[in-house]
Amino acid sequence: MVLKQLKQFDNPMHVSSESLLEFVTVLFGRAGLSQEDAAGAAEVLVEADLAGADSHGVCYSLPSRVHGLAGGKLNPSPDIRIVHETPSTALVDGDNALGLTASRRAMDIAIAKAHEVGTGTVALRNSNHCGMIAYYPMMALSHDMIGLAMSTTPGASILPTFAKDPIMGTNPIGFAVPADKEAPVILDIATSVVATGKIAIARALGIDVPEGWQVGEDGNPITDVTATKGSRGLPLGGTRELGSHKGYGLALMVDVLCGVLSGNGAGFLLPLPRSCSQYFQAIRIDAFRPADEFKQDMDVALRHLRELPPAEGHERVYYAGLQEGEMRAKRLKDGIPLPPHTVGALKDLASEFEVDFPREL
Amino acid sequence: MVLKQLKQFDNPMHVSSESLLEFVTVLFGRAGLSQEDAAGAAEVLVEADLAGADSHGVCYSLPSRVHGLAGGKLNPSPDIRIVHETPSTALVDGDNALGLTASRRAMDIAIAKAHEVGTGTVALRNSNHCGMIAYYPMMALSHDMIGLAMSTTPGASILPTFAKDPIMGTNPIGFAVPADKEAPVILDIATSVVATGKIAIARALGIDVPEGWQVGEDGNPITDVTATKGSRGLPLGGTRELGSHKGYGLALMVDVLCGVLSGNGAGFLLPLPRSCSQYFQAIRIDAFRPADEFKQDMDVALRHLRELPPAEGHERVYYAGLQEGEMRAKRLKDGIPLPPHTVGALKDLASEFEVDFPREL
Repeated sequence: MVLKQLKQFDNPMHVSSESLLEFVTVLFGRAGLSQEDAAGAAEVLVEADLAGADSHGVCYSLPSRVHGLAGGKLNPSPDIRIVHETPSTALVDGDNALGLTASRRAMDIAIAKAHEVGTGTVALRNSNHCGMIAYYPMMALSHDMIGLAMSTTPGASILPTFAKDPIMGTNPIGFAVPADKEAPVILDIATSVVATGKIAIARALGIDVPEGWQVGEDGNPITDVTATKGSRGLPLGGTRELGSHKGYGLALMVDVLCGVLSGNGAGFLLPLPRSCSQYFQAIRIDAFRPADEFKQDMDVALRHLRELPPAEGHERVYYAGLQEGEMRAKRLKDGIPLPPHTVGALKDLASEFEVDFPREL
Repeated sequence: MVLKQLKQFDNPMHVSSESLLEFVTVLFGRAGLSQEDAAGAAEVLVEADLAGADSHGVCYSLPSRVHGLAGGKLNPSPDIRIVHETPSTALVDGDNALGLTASRRAMDIAIAKAHEVGTGTVALRNSNHCGMIAYYPMMALSHDMIGLAMSTTPGASILPTFAKDPIMGTNPIGFAVPADKEAPVILDIATSVVATGKIAIARALGIDVPEGWQVGEDGNPITDVTATKGSRGLPLGGTRELGSHKGYGLALMVDVLCGVLSGNGAGFLLPLPRSCSQYFQAIRIDAFRPADEFKQDMDVALRHLRELPPAEGHERVYYAGLQEGEMRAKRLKDGIPLPPHTVGALKDLASEFEVDFPREL
């Protein structure tokens, strides 16, 4: 199965998550971020690697961001500020910060408001690509809150249902819910059939993609990975009869809540590469019922799901966040595997900015 | 295309929406609802008919509800009350009311809180099937608010990804956003490939269903509509490679926000037929930016979408809510077409409760 192949590669270099975090923090500092912002941004990337969301981790995401900061495309000392607020909401201006930095700040504001009045909702404009969308909802977990986040994306790769040309972004949605002993629910989904990053990894590894991931200008499926560049993706659902209007509708919801509500503009109207906007929400559980009871109920529900009898040909049933939680435990212990085809670029970055590269575990 | 066929039938009886609303209101009154609750519940059903969401309209939804109220399965004089609240949230107990009644009340509370503090979020327990989920977000539109609603569902028809047996509901999500001159965004989607109601209509009309809508116990697709009864549906996405974990994850999100947060219980843990729970949110636009500017920006975005060049073989591009808006205008003018195979049951109901049946237009 292709999805498994995308996570496999020969001869990985294993580094500990601590040393990778340290490396990225120092590098972001050299690129101009404050110590606090550098540590925060590094954590977003390394948490993606720990969760197995490799396309949003250090290897695939760091070089462009460091060069963006050092080269002045991104603002390393932004004035991230609340433009307008009510007790439960804020409109935040990211001042062209690194998306990771502005998004952390915005989610912090949502959490603070949820502590005060039950929920907090923040729309963020003048931001940039925020990395793994699930990171921000996960920030709510330790506060006994449910977290939600959405983001527009820089590209125009997804076809609206029945449209000739791709104009939508992959517009992801992240959602996180705490449990007591079970791994928390962590949903992290593009509203397209597949995230652009997965196709980029398939290209890097030379693996053909399944029918339904990409189509050509004629609308016919493309599976030859060497032909995917410049081709078009489909909204979640794929075809109209199988629900593509649902993926397209969810992508529009993301564009409205992030782009129009923040005043940044619907992603699909912006020139390429598009600036990004985000939407965050924190929901305090004990605004509804005692958090302990809620988390115990979550345990019962999640255990029920992971103990469901699997269909023939499958080993087990998962829920959103279970594999990520298991991957995190494994990578904390065994280290994070860096694919050989990306280590070179990271080492170049290390020598360019005169930072020690992490040692192999 | 099957989806078009499901909306077509020979010899419909056309009735005006006003007369249908009057008929349903009187009928709900005879079944025990107060005048106010009867009028409110009737509006939810007739708005579904106006939007073309026939499976949630009068023909397919009224008889079971009227009999549920008259027979004591549903509480006609419920004490719908706030159990716990914060400035931006409420937990509401529906006291086994008709789902339409409890949900309208809960969304009213969300809207009132959004007027006060920017947003309002309500979890509703001890409720029942709420009809067309988009109705409740649409209640926010005239307040210059964005609306969101989710509901668990009574059945266990959807297979979690990799699972042997269906346990999930179709768990729909509704979302509505006002525009200025353009038809508002109205998203109304089951988190499964297709809503159960569409299969019921296909069965009533004897139309075979597309591959991907239903599978048998062996996991193989079923297209023969006479074989669909008791078969299994798939989460939006269909297969794991094409994103079924996303539909399954969204369905879990609905079960958490409606079922676990309200204390009603995750839908998939409840005995059949399941009591339902809901989740509502109202977001005041001018808590972020002036509503007029927002709605003008929505017009620009929505016009852009509906004017996109269509792919070969298609006439035009839609956005969520556009077809529903056009259908509403048409049915307000031409009347609501009642399929002949459902008129009999409605007339039986009319004579059982001694209510005049609407005249043909």
